[in-house]
Amino acid sequence: MPEKPAKRLRGRPKQADNDISIQQTIIYTASALFKEYGYEAVSLQQIGKQCGVSKPTIYYHFASKPELFKVAMTTMLNNVRKVTSHLLNEVDHLEHGLVRLAEARLANPHAEIETMMREAESFLDEKQVREIREAEQQIHELLAEHFRLAMDQQILREEDPMFLAETFSTLMLMGNRENNPQKYESHLALAQKVVSLFLQGAKAT
Amino acid sequence: MPEKPAKRLRGRPKQADNDISIQQTIIYTASALFKEYGYEAVSLQQIGKQCGVSKPTIYYHFASKPELFKVAMTTMLNNVRKVTSHLLNEVDHLEHGLVRLAEARLANPHAEIETMMREAESFLDEKQVREIREAEQQIHELLAEHFRLAMDQQILREEDPMFLAETFSTLMLMGNRENNPQKYESHLALAQKVVSLFLQGAKAT
Repeated sequence: MPEKPAKRLRGRPKQADNDISIQQTIIYTASALFKEYGYEAVSLQQIGKQCGVSKPTIYYHFASKPELFKVAMTTMLNNVRKVTSHLLNEVDHLEHGLVRLAEARLANPHAEIETMMREAESFLDEKQVREIREAEQQIHELLAEHFRLAMDQQILREEDPMFLAETFSTLMLMGNRENNPQKYESHLALAQKVVSLFLQGAKAT
Repeated sequence: MPEKPAKRLRGRPKQADNDISIQQTIIYTASALFKEYGYEAVSLQQIGKQCGVSKPTIYYHFASKPELFKVAMTTMLNNVRKVTSHLLNEVDHLEHGLVRLAEARLANPHAEIETMMREAESFLDEKQVREIREAEQQIHELLAEHFRLAMDQQILREEDPMFLAETFSTLMLMGNRENNPQKYESHLALAQKVVSLFLQGAKAT
C-alpha cells in the first residue's frame, strides 16, 4: 500500500525563517509561564494561546511538554551564561563585573530553577534532567574560571574556585526573598552590598 | 427536640496527654511529608495513614489542610529558631557558633520553605501566610541580634545586621544544591568553608 502523504499539521508554518521565530516565541512564552506558575500548572494549550499558535504547531516544534520545558530551561540558563560572560569580560575590575552581574541576576533570579526542577523532575527523563543540570553547571564553570584567574592575579585568596562560584550563585537567591524590593532601594544597591560581603566578609578589619 | 449527643469521632483520643502526643505526631509526620512531596501531593489521608490515625482525628486537631500546613511550617521554623538560639548562646566565639549552626542547617535545610510556600500559598489565607512569614522573620531577627552584638564588640564590621542575617540564611541554601553531599566531605566541612567565606570574604589580604 503506498504511503499516504503526511497530513500537513494545522498551523504548521511554511518557511524556515518563520519556523525559527515561532520556535523562539514558543520558548520564551513557555519560559515565562513555567517561571510564573510552575511546570504542572501550565498546559501546552495555554502556551499556544499566549503566543497565538495552535497546539499542533507546538508539537511540530517540540516532541512533548517535558521536551519544551527542557529547551526553555536550557535556553534561559544559556542566556544567563552569555550575560555572565559578557559582563565579566567587559570590565577590568573583578568587583565591578561582579556588581553588574549580581544586579542583573538579582533582578531576574534564575534561582527559581530549583523550584521548577523539583516539581518537573518526575516528568522528565534522565537525559532531559542532565541537559538542564549541565547548562547550570556551565554557568558555575564560567564563574569559577574568572575566580581562578583572579586568584592567579592575587586578587582573591586561594580557595576552590567552584566553591566560590556556587557560593556566589547561591547569594543571588537574595533576589528571591520576600519583601526584598521594599527593603533595598534597588537591585544595584543590593548587588553592591552582596558583592562587598562576598569579597570583604563580615569581620571587622 | 433535644440535642442528640455529639457522635464521638472515630479515633478521637480520650486523654489530654494523649491528645498532645497525637497532635505532635501529626505535625511531625505532616512536616516530613510536605517537605518530601510538596503541599498539593500530600493528602490528609496519607498523613493519617503514616502516623496511624484516622482522617477525622486529624480534623479533630486541625481545622483544615492549610491550617495543618501552617502549624507544621511554624513548628519547624520555631525549632530552627530554638536551635539557633541554643547554638549561638552556648559558645563564646561567634565563629564557632556560626559553624555549628551552619552544620545543623546545611544538614537539614529549611530552605525548602520557599519552594513549599510558593506551591501552598494559593491555598492559604492571609493570616496563615503571615504567621509562617513571621516565624521565619524571627529566625532572622535572632541572628541579627547576635550580629548587632558582635558589631558592638567590634568583631564584625558595621553593616545592617538584618542584611547579614538574611545573607547568612541564604548561604544555608548551599545545602540544597544538587550533588553537594558528594562534593564536600561532610556538612561540617562545608559549614566551615561557608562561615569562613562569610566572615573573611574571598579577597586576598
